[in-house]
Amino acid sequence: MGINSNRVEDMSGHEAPQETTATATTTSVIVSAMPMPPLEVHKVCLPPARTTVQKLRQRLSEIFFPDDPLHRFKDQTLFRKLVLGLQFFIPALHWPPNYSLKQLKSDVVSGLTIASLAIPQGISYAKLANLPPIIGLYSSFVPPLVYSVLGSSRHLAVGPVSIASLVMGTMLSEAVSYTNEPILYLKLALTATFFAGLFQASLGFLRLGFVIDFLSKATLVGFMAGAAVIVSLQQLKGLLGIVHFTSKMQLVPVLSSTFHHKDEWSWQTIVMGASFLVLLLTTRQISMRRPKLFWISAIAPLASVVLSTVLVLCLKSKLHGIKTIGHLPKGVNPTTSDMLYFHGPHLALAVKTGIITGILSLTEGIAVGRTFAALKNYQVDGNKEMMAIGLMNMAGSCTSCYVTTGSFSRSAINYNAGAQTVVSNVIMAASVLVTLLFLMPLFYYTPNLILAAIIITAVIGLIDYQAAFKLWKVDKLDFLACLCSFLGVLFISVPLGLAIAVGVSIFKILLNVTRPNTIVLGKIAGTEIYQNVSRYREAARVPSFLVIAVEAPIYFANSIYIQERILRWIREEEEWLASNNRNNLKCVILDMTAVTAIDTSGIDTISELRRMLEQRSLKLVLANPVGSVMEKLHESKILELFGLEGLYLTVGEAVADISSSWKA
Amino acid sequence: MGINSNRVEDMSGHEAPQETTATATTTSVIVSAMPMPPLEVHKVCLPPARTTVQKLRQRLSEIFFPDDPLHRFKDQTLFRKLVLGLQFFIPALHWPPNYSLKQLKSDVVSGLTIASLAIPQGISYAKLANLPPIIGLYSSFVPPLVYSVLGSSRHLAVGPVSIASLVMGTMLSEAVSYTNEPILYLKLALTATFFAGLFQASLGFLRLGFVIDFLSKATLVGFMAGAAVIVSLQQLKGLLGIVHFTSKMQLVPVLSSTFHHKDEWSWQTIVMGASFLVLLLTTRQISMRRPKLFWISAIAPLASVVLSTVLVLCLKSKLHGIKTIGHLPKGVNPTTSDMLYFHGPHLALAVKTGIITGILSLTEGIAVGRTFAALKNYQVDGNKEMMAIGLMNMAGSCTSCYVTTGSFSRSAINYNAGAQTVVSNVIMAASVLVTLLFLMPLFYYTPNLILAAIIITAVIGLIDYQAAFKLWKVDKLDFLACLCSFLGVLFISVPLGLAIAVGVSIFKILLNVTRPNTIVLGKIAGTEIYQNVSRYREAARVPSFLVIAVEAPIYFANSIYIQERILRWIREEEEWLASNNRNNLKCVILDMTAVTAIDTSGIDTISELRRMLEQRSLKLVLANPVGSVMEKLHESKILELFGLEGLYLTVGEAVADISSSWKA
Repeated sequence: MGINSNRVEDMSGHEAPQETTATATTTSVIVSAMPMPPLEVHKVCLPPARTTVQKLRQRLSEIFFPDDPLHRFKDQTLFRKLVLGLQFFIPALHWPPNYSLKQLKSDVVSGLTIASLAIPQGISYAKLANLPPIIGLYSSFVPPLVYSVLGSSRHLAVGPVSIASLVMGTMLSEAVSYTNEPILYLKLALTATFFAGLFQASLGFLRLGFVIDFLSKATLVGFMAGAAVIVSLQQLKGLLGIVHFTSKMQLVPVLSSTFHHKDEWSWQTIVMGASFLVLLLTTRQISMRRPKLFWISAIAPLASVVLSTVLVLCLKSKLHGIKTIGHLPKGVNPTTSDMLYFHGPHLALAVKTGIITGILSLTEGIAVGRTFAALKNYQVDGNKEMMAIGLMNMAGSCTSCYVTTGSFSRSAINYNAGAQTVVSNVIMAASVLVTLLFLMPLFYYTPNLILAAIIITAVIGLIDYQAAFKLWKVDKLDFLACLCSFLGVLFISVPLGLAIAVGVSIFKILLNVTRPNTIVLGKIAGTEIYQNVSRYREAARVPSFLVIAVEAPIYFANSIYIQERILRWIREEEEWLASNNRNNLKCVILDMTAVTAIDTSGIDTISELRRMLEQRSLKLVLANPVGSVMEKLHESKILELFGLEGLYLTVGEAVADISSSWKA
Repeated sequence: MGINSNRVEDMSGHEAPQETTATATTTSVIVSAMPMPPLEVHKVCLPPARTTVQKLRQRLSEIFFPDDPLHRFKDQTLFRKLVLGLQFFIPALHWPPNYSLKQLKSDVVSGLTIASLAIPQGISYAKLANLPPIIGLYSSFVPPLVYSVLGSSRHLAVGPVSIASLVMGTMLSEAVSYTNEPILYLKLALTATFFAGLFQASLGFLRLGFVIDFLSKATLVGFMAGAAVIVSLQQLKGLLGIVHFTSKMQLVPVLSSTFHHKDEWSWQTIVMGASFLVLLLTTRQISMRRPKLFWISAIAPLASVVLSTVLVLCLKSKLHGIKTIGHLPKGVNPTTSDMLYFHGPHLALAVKTGIITGILSLTEGIAVGRTFAALKNYQVDGNKEMMAIGLMNMAGSCTSCYVTTGSFSRSAINYNAGAQTVVSNVIMAASVLVTLLFLMPLFYYTPNLILAAIIITAVIGLIDYQAAFKLWKVDKLDFLACLCSFLGVLFISVPLGLAIAVGVSIFKILLNVTRPNTIVLGKIAGTEIYQNVSRYREAARVPSFLVIAVEAPIYFANSIYIQERILRWIREEEEWLASNNRNNLKCVILDMTAVTAIDTSGIDTISELRRMLEQRSLKLVLANPVGSVMEKLHESKILELFGLEGLYLTVGEAVADISSSWKA
């Protein structure tokens, strides 16, 4: 990458002459007494010539390998390369050599903490996806183990998450009833999980990880808030004890279903549900205010489950209205590879659900991983992480698990509890294993209402109104994207809301490309700096010149606009000059510094503009075209039209050279 | 727009002191003998404060009124404003005051010339749209008259065109058979024309004209070539005399249909068709080689029609296999407003066909108008032109016309024949009127093969292989878009081919945004210019500094990439420094000149980057953030994080100031 070329020798202490003029004020008189060099005009260079194949290769390597993943292997022995390669694919090999007892202690504490959260949340989220509760526990066992081998984040707590569960539940139950055809529904869920994993792993393997970048933060804020509202309202079913509830996910049917079945409301359920909800929300508030007390909110769900189960057990003769989980099978995950479903009428649905839940859970997992990696100052490789999450889901789909990823809430608790490595995930999986083997009968009397309360407490944190407010303050269009995805999820549907939000985000990019800024530059007195005249009071226009900076690539989508806008700037300038009896405009300088790319339409625009201005006896010159633009101008032969005198390295040199040529 | 602010007084002859240093080499010693000013660091300004409403208003006015259409009305009397307003809406009012006899003569000549082309082409194109031939003549009468009142191009020759006819024919005949239900088919065509006009006029009225800019030139080159190939192959029906021909439009069914009906081939038709095709192509070649002989290709179609009709009439007893047009009704356009179809099962199809043919014919009309306006140095207002074309089509749909626009081939001939104003369109319409009233029976014996030959001659010019070759040379991705639309049209379908091509074009924009260039800048010795070190040999890195320019807006779609890429530049630099025993890196300067916009994700990236570098004892400063970026940084409070010393107006000032602070 030319890193070794053109480097001035490091003359310890920056005493190179060209620096002194600028930095050392005391010596300035001496320096400036030296005769000024004659007016020097620097030639605009073409970038080093490259063949099409070289260009393509560089382009592709920037698209697919921006992080240069092979740089670690450079200049290493073969054995070292092998070790590094193995470590690359199995990050778990990194930590054992230096793993200490102290780290193990931390990992055990944090692993047990997240297990106490993962067990009740696993059961709850499975219900959110309309799956049997036991699937949620299975999903908290195998995937964390797979991730602990392949994953590169040290703080990610892996398991089922609310958003992916919600989306899977919505999309599948639109086509298949989970009450009438539970086996088919489960098959579809497992198949969707398989495709989610396949999709995630392929994205990582093909190094297409940047696809998830198109879900902007603004989009996600709105989407998550909308999903949280819907999920919370859906929990009214459990909290009010309603039996016949809609399976739809939009705001209107959920609310109407709630009030349509008033006769099914059970006061015992309401009282108990409300009390536990208040309890859980209070512990959440306490932990948020005082991060040191994180364990209160971590332990609260399990405590509530135990407490409510005991209560129901003791008062079962009096509390008829309260629905409980009922029988759960004992034992570890049964294999389900034979339940995957690769043909038949619902395959398309399973693939679609897989892709959408896959991309959503990937986004959450990567974002969570990056957040905690940044806090502890280590790097998470997005593409590798995608492969890890993908393989974990593919393995999960064969062992009774549905879509899992890194959960934000549990990872935060994992981090706060002092997790050091992925061993905390292993500890958590072990605790879940103990539960699966021995403790399942204890859940018989656990009331559904407590699951509803746990879900509400978990998803309420997804409503990030402060982030939305900041979006409004900083960027109105970002806020619009956020609002669109929020309302889209609430009133239309989850996938469509997401699609609308992505559309708005892309539209925003296109809008910026279609209607770029053009500004008029003026010279800051005493310098060679040219700046926006409407922003810098010191910047003044140079007589007979009009300097226009175009702040965007010139593409088919904006070439007509840019041409018209430049002509308008010229017209307005000429009108002003005429009405103030000033000298005529003689030269238009286009500052191309921010024109980072050009296509064939853009090239036509430039030559068209040059032709039009020539007819009006106005000179058009370009200042500082960037490398790729220069190449295209050269290839299209337009440079010959401009010739040597039509291209300058800076606006300052252009003004100086052209005005001196006028004098001569 | 700040046009009056900050202007240095025009001191006749540029003798302002700051210019002398740069321009007058002879006085440079004297000037430079003045003591140098102390190191001056310019503050980075925020743009003038504006309220949200002001910002929104400016943004909207740039989107919808980039040409400032009201500037003509400024500082005028009320009466003058009224006249100007009337002229604005009816451009026809512009020319009568100065219209001369000489101009009239030119217009009559050119009007008659294009009429001789419009009559056979009108009949041919109507057949291309599977409509009765007479509809093509009707469409060459009313729309040109409407356009001559509302249109602002002086050279546009209005009438049916091949692409729109083809697309309408394809889309409608997929749902309705034009042989079995000719009335319904005609109704649908008229309704589609109405919606095309409504869509076009709304685009113009709502000033959304930029929508058509998304059909890039590359897309159109491919699309038109594909359409031309399909249309030409379809004409094999007429040229070979096949009766049972497919109504499909893809390459494969058309070719298989041609060879499947070999028994229907008629040798008389083939001989006659081939002869006339060769004749027409020869005249086309002659006119292309010698533009002065344009009238040869202009007159050839009508001459061929006359000749072939006479031939068929004389030899009718011997030429059985040759199909002729047959009876055509006399008289002017019947009104068809009662045939428009605003409900029922095919409404959606009519709307869709209308929108697609509308946008295609608009693109052709506007492009043609702009081309000839540029040649004669006048401006065509895109949005006004859209309203004119739209109203013309709406009027047409009520008077038996189908979609019309400005035809490229006829406009070129109009231009070459010396057309001065839209009067040439009026003359053409008058000629068509005479034909409609008196000459219709003459077409009874006109053979269909001649129409096929005329169509092929017309569309063959749409295959612009030179443009495609230029695309390949200048921009490989543009060529890909071109190829996609070409192949899409040939093998899939016309609308889908178009959609794919637009998709590729948008993908290209997004790709450029997702993977922007980042370059390392070095200082050109003896100047304050910082340039790409891999492009300019003179540019050398400044010790202890790393100057990185980001060449794109920082968005959600690229913020992760930019962060990783910058970290990689730093890593590579540090590795190089370490292996060469140089001083450590101390400061990273981000040149933000080309970062034309930033969103909330981008802001997070900047502050994240600053935090990460701070932990590694590296200073991060920003140079020259543009106005809108500066505003966003300010609103998000990130500026406070950077403070005064983290922002510089130029890279040069940043280097100078920071290195002097290290010394102090």
